[in-house]
Amino acid sequence: MSNSTELSSFTGWAATAAGAPLERYSYDPGPLGDEDVEVAVEYCGVCHSDQSLIDNDWGISQYPFIPGHEVVGKIVRTGAQVRGLEVGQRVGIGWYKGSCMHCPSCMGGSHNLCSTARPTIIGSHGGFADRVRSHWAWALKIPAGLDPALAGPLFCAGSTVFNPLVEFGVKPTDRVGVVGIGGLGHLALRFLNAWGCEVTAFTSSLSKQDEAKRLGAHNVVASTDSAALKAIAGTLDFLLVTANANLDWSAMLATLRGRGRLHFVGIVPSAIPVHVFELIPQQKVLSASPVGSPAATATMLEFCARHQIVPQVEHFPMSRVNEAVDHLRSGKARYRIVLDASR
Amino acid sequence: MSNSTELSSFTGWAATAAGAPLERYSYDPGPLGDEDVEVAVEYCGVCHSDQSLIDNDWGISQYPFIPGHEVVGKIVRTGAQVRGLEVGQRVGIGWYKGSCMHCPSCMGGSHNLCSTARPTIIGSHGGFADRVRSHWAWALKIPAGLDPALAGPLFCAGSTVFNPLVEFGVKPTDRVGVVGIGGLGHLALRFLNAWGCEVTAFTSSLSKQDEAKRLGAHNVVASTDSAALKAIAGTLDFLLVTANANLDWSAMLATLRGRGRLHFVGIVPSAIPVHVFELIPQQKVLSASPVGSPAATATMLEFCARHQIVPQVEHFPMSRVNEAVDHLRSGKARYRIVLDASR
Repeated sequence: MSNSTELSSFTGWAATAAGAPLERYSYDPGPLGDEDVEVAVEYCGVCHSDQSLIDNDWGISQYPFIPGHEVVGKIVRTGAQVRGLEVGQRVGIGWYKGSCMHCPSCMGGSHNLCSTARPTIIGSHGGFADRVRSHWAWALKIPAGLDPALAGPLFCAGSTVFNPLVEFGVKPTDRVGVVGIGGLGHLALRFLNAWGCEVTAFTSSLSKQDEAKRLGAHNVVASTDSAALKAIAGTLDFLLVTANANLDWSAMLATLRGRGRLHFVGIVPSAIPVHVFELIPQQKVLSASPVGSPAATATMLEFCARHQIVPQVEHFPMSRVNEAVDHLRSGKARYRIVLDASR
Repeated sequence: MSNSTELSSFTGWAATAAGAPLERYSYDPGPLGDEDVEVAVEYCGVCHSDQSLIDNDWGISQYPFIPGHEVVGKIVRTGAQVRGLEVGQRVGIGWYKGSCMHCPSCMGGSHNLCSTARPTIIGSHGGFADRVRSHWAWALKIPAGLDPALAGPLFCAGSTVFNPLVEFGVKPTDRVGVVGIGGLGHLALRFLNAWGCEVTAFTSSLSKQDEAKRLGAHNVVASTDSAALKAIAGTLDFLLVTANANLDWSAMLATLRGRGRLHFVGIVPSAIPVHVFELIPQQKVLSASPVGSPAATATMLEFCARHQIVPQVEHFPMSRVNEAVDHLRSGKARYRIVLDASR
């Protein structure tokens, strides 16, 4: 299939000011880069980072701004230097859409740690649109057996929680906790269950108890119940924090056993006060990580296809994107929203 | 050689109140435990923890209190169940003198992470004395070729800084920083130089610059010079903090490259405010660890003998222990003090 269907402008849904409802907006994407693919959007997940950037929570938003960085769609054009991809293939694009390709991180396979990696929706427009572009290295083929209508959230939420399992060598024999059962956390429960671990879900609302178990948790603990936390002191090998909340981190650290790790993938608002004497005797570790590399994300996609792991999503037509964002804001999304471009 | 020279009381130098000068003091050690060895002290290092416990800095001191946990001496008696050691052998004893031997940590070789490990000088008397006892597992033979007069500090200071190199897989190709050039830090410089790393010393006083280089540093940076810290941003794989001081931890984290680790072995007085967004993009890690396990400490002793690594010490006769403690308090010890029991 040859390159085709060049558009003079892309059309999406943009915020024109901090917190404003999204409006139809068209922009000129300029010439296609030699190493870029252009994707006709079929589906796009809605992530808390989209909302943070709509609202300028991080103070870096530029308007008009088209969110969307959990894209699934078909390649419609390829630059002259694109490798391994062809027009017509279905791919996904996540938090990053490019990196320098030559720094030690990129050359070492950790393109996600490239200090000049380009986020899909910072400095360019995202996937709440008809088209979006990505460097070929960051557009990953959707494997056979994975429903494209559900795959979008794997590219940001999924990769972000899968990545630390690979990076830090989580073992099937480990006892792992997941703090926060939302877009990221519910996927973490599914991954860890398939990984063979004993899985404990920490949630602020025990109303999610049954759902957490259905998603793969063996145990559920209320994250604000200090007696419950004390009861499991010294038992966990790994505690994956997906919640963007300030919790009692000393109590969380105390749930870890020797060499245990408290790992963050959510942007906790306040600084975490770490007392060295809470880490030293049992050699505990605190760490954080971004979305996975292209290689780690591809490994995740394979794992998802093998174990039939997909996010639990609610679908909205792209044309009702503002309802979708409001639903996200309400905290009631179970557990990820996907926009369908065709509707 | 048979068990011999049973003493009805042990005599050492004790603080009788917080911060008091040490006085001659005798106590009844009770019957020798079946798994314990009794050691006639030849040398004992003086560590900042000794001073902290003399001064009741941690609020847990009990008086009278005999400090001393960097002991070298000869075994004079052995309990009936002691394994692998005999009367007449020269051994060293460090921060811990016992552990439960059956918990998962102990059974896994990490006796140093045993939650009931017994510190040599908390709940019992230490090595500023004629005799001291230890469980056999925690009394390690001094290898041939290692000067016993210099070996004492290896059992606390040495093992504490050697342990993370083993635990966290520091590689000869790594760039490693050492913050604080004192009793622990100066040994870390020697270890890391022999380990093959590029070694950067961080010191509050550049007056130690030449000495840091003589000790094995390739580069020296003033730990309070923000421009100097900025100049090495993103370059280090591992930053080992041996200083018990509150520093600019954000600036220290910024010296790390992707997957870099900020590791503490000193008890920093205040909580370290960790902003998750400083860790996430480059997947940085913060951790801390205690003294090494018996196995790791034995590995260190072998490494020291092979590379002729010993601490740089100042000797004081045991009888002038109060002058030694004053010298430690002055911050002028270069870099570790050893008490000689024979003088």
